[in-house]
Amino acid sequence: MLGHGGGGRLMNQLIRERLIPRLSPERDGPLHDAAVIPVNGQKIAFTTDSYVINPIFFPGGDIGQLAVHGTVNDLCMAGARPLHLSLGLILEEGFPIRDLEVVTESIAAAAAATGVSVVTGDTKVVDKGKGDGIYINTAGIGLIEHDQHISPAAPRPGDAVILSGDIGRHGMAIMAVREGLSFESDITSDSAPVWACVRALLQAGITIRCLRDLTRGGLASACNEIAEAAHMGIRLREDAIPVREDVRAACEILGMDPLYVANEGRFIAFVPNAEAASAVTALRATALGSAATVIGHCADDPDHLVTLKNPLGHDRIIDMLSADQLPRIC
Amino acid sequence: MLGHGGGGRLMNQLIRERLIPRLSPERDGPLHDAAVIPVNGQKIAFTTDSYVINPIFFPGGDIGQLAVHGTVNDLCMAGARPLHLSLGLILEEGFPIRDLEVVTESIAAAAAATGVSVVTGDTKVVDKGKGDGIYINTAGIGLIEHDQHISPAAPRPGDAVILSGDIGRHGMAIMAVREGLSFESDITSDSAPVWACVRALLQAGITIRCLRDLTRGGLASACNEIAEAAHMGIRLREDAIPVREDVRAACEILGMDPLYVANEGRFIAFVPNAEAASAVTALRATALGSAATVIGHCADDPDHLVTLKNPLGHDRIIDMLSADQLPRIC
Repeated sequence: MLGHGGGGRLMNQLIRERLIPRLSPERDGPLHDAAVIPVNGQKIAFTTDSYVINPIFFPGGDIGQLAVHGTVNDLCMAGARPLHLSLGLILEEGFPIRDLEVVTESIAAAAAATGVSVVTGDTKVVDKGKGDGIYINTAGIGLIEHDQHISPAAPRPGDAVILSGDIGRHGMAIMAVREGLSFESDITSDSAPVWACVRALLQAGITIRCLRDLTRGGLASACNEIAEAAHMGIRLREDAIPVREDVRAACEILGMDPLYVANEGRFIAFVPNAEAASAVTALRATALGSAATVIGHCADDPDHLVTLKNPLGHDRIIDMLSADQLPRIC
Repeated sequence: MLGHGGGGRLMNQLIRERLIPRLSPERDGPLHDAAVIPVNGQKIAFTTDSYVINPIFFPGGDIGQLAVHGTVNDLCMAGARPLHLSLGLILEEGFPIRDLEVVTESIAAAAAATGVSVVTGDTKVVDKGKGDGIYINTAGIGLIEHDQHISPAAPRPGDAVILSGDIGRHGMAIMAVREGLSFESDITSDSAPVWACVRALLQAGITIRCLRDLTRGGLASACNEIAEAAHMGIRLREDAIPVREDVRAACEILGMDPLYVANEGRFIAFVPNAEAASAVTALRATALGSAATVIGHCADDPDHLVTLKNPLGHDRIIDMLSADQLPRIC
């Protein structure tokens, strides 16, 4: 089903129950955004993502830029400096060469802006009706140049949860185009590389327990995955989570919850509470992290629940959805 | 067009004229099967391939096994020891979970047999009618543990061209299934990892100028690409090139030339002629390279022609096709 690619419980089940037991039966740890592999004494981060977003051009970006940012950000979430990308194109017969050129230029610009290079590639063409214009895979290699242990299992009760900026823009920008809604001119995707933010945390000497970008499934899914992996609960405060007014209004019209909407340039960082203020200061010194803020804390909780306290002081449980509210969002 | 993914002149033009000038405008060298990138003093090989083969199950293999062998072999062609793979799945809504499990088991078995591990992955699902069951991308990382300079530009006039075994089986195995031909039970794909062969050459101390696997476009395209990159001609001898009788017969029935048919476990090696006998001996000591043989030599030729001498002594020019004879062969 489409939901098996939606970043929620269905996809998790597919990967954990069908794929990993076959590919890596001895594996017993949490899933990270990138693998960390030792290569002759170096710690190399390695990750892959395919991009099947529909539409391929959207306010604030396109599939090419997204394919750079998404994979670069997965490397960043392992605390790695992004170095190199591979580029696999699956083109549908009839896809306009001009669109391919535009997407390629977008890939090049995003890579240059992020300081990574596309060093290897592959091109396949499938029959008309067996694709959807263009699908892109990028794999990425990064280098881990510090000794921190950044892992979904590392956060502890009491740690602060820091959000790097406002949420919900990527998903609502896509939704606006798909539905032809009138607010489309106002909301653009937040697609952006987050390396400058992560580098700022590292350079400030912050103890980083875990980083997680808020793509498919949004903030809610990310928090649930980390709570599960670290065997603890997470307590969020609704009034601390930045959501732009137009994004909130669009969500209300469409009956969607911004907590579950995909982002492509936002992440959460788990740090010891004593270092939270320094971490926020470091993030706010970057262009992308200027609105970074503490949105909650980790808590002892045998049920590993993620809860949200509303401005009136009431808590509600933020569960993981079975799939993203929007298929093919990235 | 489908031909833009066919490994021939059309694909070359697309990559050289449309993609590389945008992605890597300063680039001025020949295209290699894998990039070689320095990472803190290590030489890392990095490559990617998407697999869109139709049908996904075929005599001698399936898309999962192929996605391991193909990417591993690209690393080998850079002289790298294959280490790690990423796995990107693009599934079409409705693709049977059971088939996914079979393909995944095939990936795991091929990886184990080749000594590589799948360390990171991604799963996307697209709407019914926007895919074709399953597309797979694998990217690979390998380590270059020697100081040889293996490059398509390195061969020189006089070098021997060594073929690692018989050709034409993968393409004809696929063709048999597609066309429902009666010879299908006899021909199986040659899909296999070639690392043991490349390692044997390295361990024997052979000077390896260039390695190239014979996938899309077959032996003919590989020779033309190297002749062009190294600014020389190649002289092949038809009676030296092993083709199984059933493969030859199937090619004749279908009006195809085995020189252009895709292989997934065969490669050519360019070595100094004085080392050719040692290289053949080293290859023949491996299970996969038992039929390795010298099939021709490089020659001074300002036109960079590839020619084939038939048993009667007549030469014909082996040109590059505009695309593979068989679309979606890998």
